[in-house]
Amino acid sequence: MHVVDPAAIASKYLEASRSAVEELGASPMVAGFIATSDPPSIAYANATRQQFSNAGFGYDLRQVKRLELEDAILEANEDPTIHGIFIYFPVFSNQQDDYLRNLVDFKKDIEAGSLYWTRKLYANDRLAIKGDTTRKALLPCTPLAIVKILDEIDEYGSEARPLREKRVTIFNRSEVIGRPLAVMMSNDGATVYSFDEFGPLEFRHAEPFESEITREEALEKSDIIITGVPSEDFRKVNRNEISSDSVCVNFSSVKNFEDDIADYVKTFVPRVGPMTVAMCMRNTIRLFKNFHQES
Amino acid sequence: MHVVDPAAIASKYLEASRSAVEELGASPMVAGFIATSDPPSIAYANATRQQFSNAGFGYDLRQVKRLELEDAILEANEDPTIHGIFIYFPVFSNQQDDYLRNLVDFKKDIEAGSLYWTRKLYANDRLAIKGDTTRKALLPCTPLAIVKILDEIDEYGSEARPLREKRVTIFNRSEVIGRPLAVMMSNDGATVYSFDEFGPLEFRHAEPFESEITREEALEKSDIIITGVPSEDFRKVNRNEISSDSVCVNFSSVKNFEDDIADYVKTFVPRVGPMTVAMCMRNTIRLFKNFHQES
Repeated sequence: MHVVDPAAIASKYLEASRSAVEELGASPMVAGFIATSDPPSIAYANATRQQFSNAGFGYDLRQVKRLELEDAILEANEDPTIHGIFIYFPVFSNQQDDYLRNLVDFKKDIEAGSLYWTRKLYANDRLAIKGDTTRKALLPCTPLAIVKILDEIDEYGSEARPLREKRVTIFNRSEVIGRPLAVMMSNDGATVYSFDEFGPLEFRHAEPFESEITREEALEKSDIIITGVPSEDFRKVNRNEISSDSVCVNFSSVKNFEDDIADYVKTFVPRVGPMTVAMCMRNTIRLFKNFHQES
Repeated sequence: MHVVDPAAIASKYLEASRSAVEELGASPMVAGFIATSDPPSIAYANATRQQFSNAGFGYDLRQVKRLELEDAILEANEDPTIHGIFIYFPVFSNQQDDYLRNLVDFKKDIEAGSLYWTRKLYANDRLAIKGDTTRKALLPCTPLAIVKILDEIDEYGSEARPLREKRVTIFNRSEVIGRPLAVMMSNDGATVYSFDEFGPLEFRHAEPFESEITREEALEKSDIIITGVPSEDFRKVNRNEISSDSVCVNFSSVKNFEDDIADYVKTFVPRVGPMTVAMCMRNTIRLFKNFHQES
């Protein structure tokens, strides 16, 4: 049994970002928008600001009313002194959050959650701008964070298709996390069973296939189990359903595994948040080099 | 009491489209994608194909597997012989449907449901292309259908702000129907109480404001009540909650009013579907003139 602290893994990436910012000879400026006055959310926002600052970025945390966020994003899109935009979701908790996410100029979308970047991933297009081989595309920050964590705990092999022969179950098929993650991991060789409340799909070689697999079958077969269901109604994954040799990762704000899972499985990653922030920094640097650096 | 048949209203618009196609001297070609083999859905798709054909459009109804729809859309985007794309939703019934909707090239998006067009509406930008005053923007087809129905039944005045002093309640704040509709009607002068499962907003002059209004207060005050909640769990609007002088419109596939509402209110519009199709034709013609016509 091994419980992974994502903050410990993140520290290496934060250090790498600090060095990369130093090398840039400039300090990329991020505007972070928070549209709540909920104290824990504000505390979290201040903590991320501190992390960006520690790594040498500028970080302007802006508290706005939710109905003013749309205009605030459009303004930051136009502001040449802002190089990256981060939004603390949820804001409206409905479809309007997707609208806001897609309002961010792709050149400043450090979370890489907008359609511009997810489309590139689904199309296996590795270039930020069509035909320009000097600028690399971004990957969405949370899926990237999960892949990097698995890599750090040696669940990724070193060959060309490092997840070859691995089976993965993912509970979440959102456009921002679950689907991109299924595409990325299946592209790396895994067979991915992807569940949402409407049923399963199976991903192989970055392609989806219809599937009749049940939760029970998928969990029994899987080497890696990843959960991201922000609901107390989700039936928590328990030790009777999975192998003690499995690696379990929860990225939901809600516990999706039973509490005693950590004592049972090979490796348990209870959260990924700190690595998500680290991947946003990495994306910020890539966007800065791609689009904002004086050449 | 007056029950409105949207098909009867639509026939006038279908006739106008037929004339407009004749005047074009060309037959705009629409690809309609259906990703189900459910017989009623297929029957509905065939009926819309027939309507487009009757009005002089080409209409190629294509049955595809849901997992092939993404590629099929991308192909139609690139196909110069296709001028408009129509998708029969729901496909996945989740966030992926929004992804698909936004995959349609805006120049072929006859439903005008993609972010390109809703953003223009929210920004009150009336031009299809920035700076080009010869090409007008599109409006999303279902909100437009509802506004046109209200206009036809004389609920729209003829002055500059035709809904001045009207109060409207809308149950639905989706990005494709409820929010654009609230913006459009408030832009026409109405005070709009917009509800979704997360609570109300009030729209005035095309701007949203936070609101504490309850369902009961909103319904009691409203001249026009519009429902679009595709769930049997929604508490149906009943005659005790509303004025007998009100106009009620349901655009949900599920009945959102109690059955006896039609005998009680001034006007009841039980569905808007036929007008939505008519508005798609109108949009097809506008897109053809804007982007596909040989000049």
